[in-house]
Amino acid sequence: MAVYTIGIDFGTLSGRAVLVNTQNGEIVAQAKCDYAHGVMDEKLPSGKKLPHEWALQDAKDYLDVLEGTIPRLLSASGVSTQDVAGIGIDFTSCTLVACKADGTPLSVIYPDAPHAYVKLWKHHAAQAQADRINQLTQQRGEAWLARYGGTVSSEWLLPKALQMLEEAPDLYDETDFFIEAADWIVWQLTGRLVRSAGTCGYKALWNKRDGYPDADFLASLDPRLSDFVQTKLVGDVLPIGSLAGRLQGDMAQKLGLCEGIAVAVGNIDAHVTVPAAGITGVGKLLAIVGTSTCHMITSEREHLVPGICGVVADGILPDLFGYEAGQCCVGDHFAWLVDHMVPQHYFDEAKAMHMDIHAYLTHLADQLSVGQSGLLALDWWNGNRSILVDADLSGMILGMTLRTRVEEIYRALIEATAYGTRIIVENFRAHGVTIDEVIATGGIAKKNPMMMQIYADVLNLPIRIAETDQSGALGSAIFGAVAAGVHKDVYTAVAHMVKPSVTTYSPIQENVERYELLYQEYKTLHDYFGKDGNAVMHRLKQLR
Amino acid sequence: MAVYTIGIDFGTLSGRAVLVNTQNGEIVAQAKCDYAHGVMDEKLPSGKKLPHEWALQDAKDYLDVLEGTIPRLLSASGVSTQDVAGIGIDFTSCTLVACKADGTPLSVIYPDAPHAYVKLWKHHAAQAQADRINQLTQQRGEAWLARYGGTVSSEWLLPKALQMLEEAPDLYDETDFFIEAADWIVWQLTGRLVRSAGTCGYKALWNKRDGYPDADFLASLDPRLSDFVQTKLVGDVLPIGSLAGRLQGDMAQKLGLCEGIAVAVGNIDAHVTVPAAGITGVGKLLAIVGTSTCHMITSEREHLVPGICGVVADGILPDLFGYEAGQCCVGDHFAWLVDHMVPQHYFDEAKAMHMDIHAYLTHLADQLSVGQSGLLALDWWNGNRSILVDADLSGMILGMTLRTRVEEIYRALIEATAYGTRIIVENFRAHGVTIDEVIATGGIAKKNPMMMQIYADVLNLPIRIAETDQSGALGSAIFGAVAAGVHKDVYTAVAHMVKPSVTTYSPIQENVERYELLYQEYKTLHDYFGKDGNAVMHRLKQLR
Repeated sequence: MAVYTIGIDFGTLSGRAVLVNTQNGEIVAQAKCDYAHGVMDEKLPSGKKLPHEWALQDAKDYLDVLEGTIPRLLSASGVSTQDVAGIGIDFTSCTLVACKADGTPLSVIYPDAPHAYVKLWKHHAAQAQADRINQLTQQRGEAWLARYGGTVSSEWLLPKALQMLEEAPDLYDETDFFIEAADWIVWQLTGRLVRSAGTCGYKALWNKRDGYPDADFLASLDPRLSDFVQTKLVGDVLPIGSLAGRLQGDMAQKLGLCEGIAVAVGNIDAHVTVPAAGITGVGKLLAIVGTSTCHMITSEREHLVPGICGVVADGILPDLFGYEAGQCCVGDHFAWLVDHMVPQHYFDEAKAMHMDIHAYLTHLADQLSVGQSGLLALDWWNGNRSILVDADLSGMILGMTLRTRVEEIYRALIEATAYGTRIIVENFRAHGVTIDEVIATGGIAKKNPMMMQIYADVLNLPIRIAETDQSGALGSAIFGAVAAGVHKDVYTAVAHMVKPSVTTYSPIQENVERYELLYQEYKTLHDYFGKDGNAVMHRLKQLR
Repeated sequence: MAVYTIGIDFGTLSGRAVLVNTQNGEIVAQAKCDYAHGVMDEKLPSGKKLPHEWALQDAKDYLDVLEGTIPRLLSASGVSTQDVAGIGIDFTSCTLVACKADGTPLSVIYPDAPHAYVKLWKHHAAQAQADRINQLTQQRGEAWLARYGGTVSSEWLLPKALQMLEEAPDLYDETDFFIEAADWIVWQLTGRLVRSAGTCGYKALWNKRDGYPDADFLASLDPRLSDFVQTKLVGDVLPIGSLAGRLQGDMAQKLGLCEGIAVAVGNIDAHVTVPAAGITGVGKLLAIVGTSTCHMITSEREHLVPGICGVVADGILPDLFGYEAGQCCVGDHFAWLVDHMVPQHYFDEAKAMHMDIHAYLTHLADQLSVGQSGLLALDWWNGNRSILVDADLSGMILGMTLRTRVEEIYRALIEATAYGTRIIVENFRAHGVTIDEVIATGGIAKKNPMMMQIYADVLNLPIRIAETDQSGALGSAIFGAVAAGVHKDVYTAVAHMVKPSVTTYSPIQENVERYELLYQEYKTLHDYFGKDGNAVMHRLKQLR
């Protein structure tokens, strides 16, 4: 008899749920539910205006996803309630809920207070707080900073909480707990407040060995924070892949599931893609290639790698150290070019060939040999996340002549993102993290074979394309199966539930050699403009 | 009673003639005549194919211009033949005629031999010869090289003659004289073979003090060249503004003019624009702004300025040292952007506003403040003439974000050409040549006030716009009037024949200060990519 688990992937605009056969990984049903309030970045439901850089959500929308998807999975598939053994959850992060001790979001009580709402991952209004945290951390030489590549992001938990303390101290006092939405939704399902090693490790400066930053540091930041950890971060931190608790009765009834089924510890959305892509061991870099790219890799040891987003024990796969890095602008480059620099005749020609414009530009770019355009770009249209961690860098293209055409620039931008990935790969290796293969997923990875071949050639590594289209939700269903004990660990679950890749791009030696020369040129310009050579990009931004 | 002179401007595709009242500069008639053979860069009239980089003309087309324009000037204006006192000529250069001792072009005798035809200024097939000349010159430490900024161009007389010697030695032996088309047409008019200090000085390595390169140097280049000057460059070299000779009888009859009227020494097309723009003294930089830009300035002394095209005594104005420099790509940048990078909606909006696309992009760019776009470009899409003299440099843009739009790039390209001009101005000043005002002419200078204001702000100099639309032919008519003795010198002629400018752009102090910061950034990148910092542009071209 088949056993099923549910995986739910909470994205930026909607939640997607799948019902998966734990023996063969077959997705027997899927359902999607948009958030009624979407992203609130201009005003609250009451009409109250929000300042620039804010991005809020209403936690009630997350509960609606549960009720709006799970019953439909069961009815659509015909799977019996009794055959569903567990649930796994993944979520955008750091998406931060401020709530009362019973879990009630503050926005239920104070619907007109911006700080009462969930601060979405891309809420960027706590930069001043992040700057002060970074300054203090460096002054004090806090050892934990090296685990985060040397920089605390404004997107993380502490800057967001500090912003509330400074701008709305009364609401801060009213807040019993700050908790990641991933952990909050698990709490709602189980009635048990636990936290995830993934969310706490990557976004709340928690470490398996040392815990959270100490009270002395927090008091130096603001005396009112001296008891922050003890009072507002209550809840045990559990490893990824473990059981968070069991589905409580009233929730089971609402969702049409059996009371007491397993609920896995919550997870970060990108991270569940690792097992969903079939990765269970070290040395395999997962690249989720979309508008931006997120990179994840595991290692048996903790290495301090500058310029990455973080290293967390048990944070991505149990019993391994998980590392995350990123490129802020990948598909965004190509969209920018298509939206703002492409003459009409390209669109006409694409239409005549029944291709979309990206496919057509790729078709033209694919006819160029390596180096033929003479162009070289720095992929910093949106700044640089890894390894320079500098939002004030900007884009560059070099090598233009009067014969330069837009498809050459299109290819140069693709190549620049490949060089950017190689910088990240080499930085990991230089600091002890082995990488021997790249697995790519995300829309672009599947749609653009030329780009993946360029990545293979630039990295001189095989690129394997992950098969699933629902990698987030499938990954959560895998963790649900482990939490339910259907499979004894993640490795066994992956062996049963993930289809092997069929598409692999191998490096072409001739291209590897030519790209090696071009990469060295990229590296020189990367260091010149991004490190100590010439801070012209910063100065130009200041002049704006 | 009014006295008139004729000015004829021989361009790349046609000749334009004007009949000018020498008392007030009024152009009473004008006529244009296209060359029947245009530019031969693919095949000869016989159908014989030409190699890449060749550009030839048929000298007979030049004679047809005389007969096709001068009689029309007289009939259209009603001016009496007796009232025409002189003729001035200007020509593209170095446009080189190979001829017999009686002036017959070799192409008349050998119509199927490519080397028998006129080599047009933009014949670029003698680069190998130019490279060898430069190498030898540097090895031998020839003092004259410093007058040419340190480099001999493949466009000049010696590389073109050497190419013929090497590739068609029989034709070389058949050639009695090599002569600039400007001097050849004057010879046809007067029957007297003299040469111009302008053409010989700028293009044939001649110098008032030292003459041509010595026989020892030429013999080192090729033993067959040891008597090159004595045999093939026969003809006295006369200063600009002097009398070359008098119109001979048969020619006077053909053209409907009186025998014996004055014919001025021939001139280079860009150079006659100097008096036509009202410039008679030192310190006034003339910029002819078109697809590329040509800069001319005079000084009372000879300064050796690196990176310029040349300094020649009496070469532009009598009794002064004339200097020339250039930017290879100015309007070409804007045309490239418009032709290859502008989405359809800009064209639609331009049409709705009854503007051409350049005017519309300028309209949008004009709304940006200095530095607002955050962009900085290097204007090297076509390499760099002055002061780097490097055809293998290429373009660069820096500062792009996802919000960058095409009108911002349009403005950044305009600004880059302004910074490039300032590099040239500062280089002249650093080597002793005073510049206190800029006079601009050419199509773009009249059509784009925003661009001229940017130039004034970047250079921190007033920019005066020259009034005439026929600056080449008017300039030649001025020299015709001086040669005829109607005016005692060029200065008096200009005072009578050139209308004062009415449009001047003055620097706006606030913009000057901001552009100073941006120019310093440009200068740093100019030196980094163009001098010893990073030869990436060369390496990328080699990889193509």
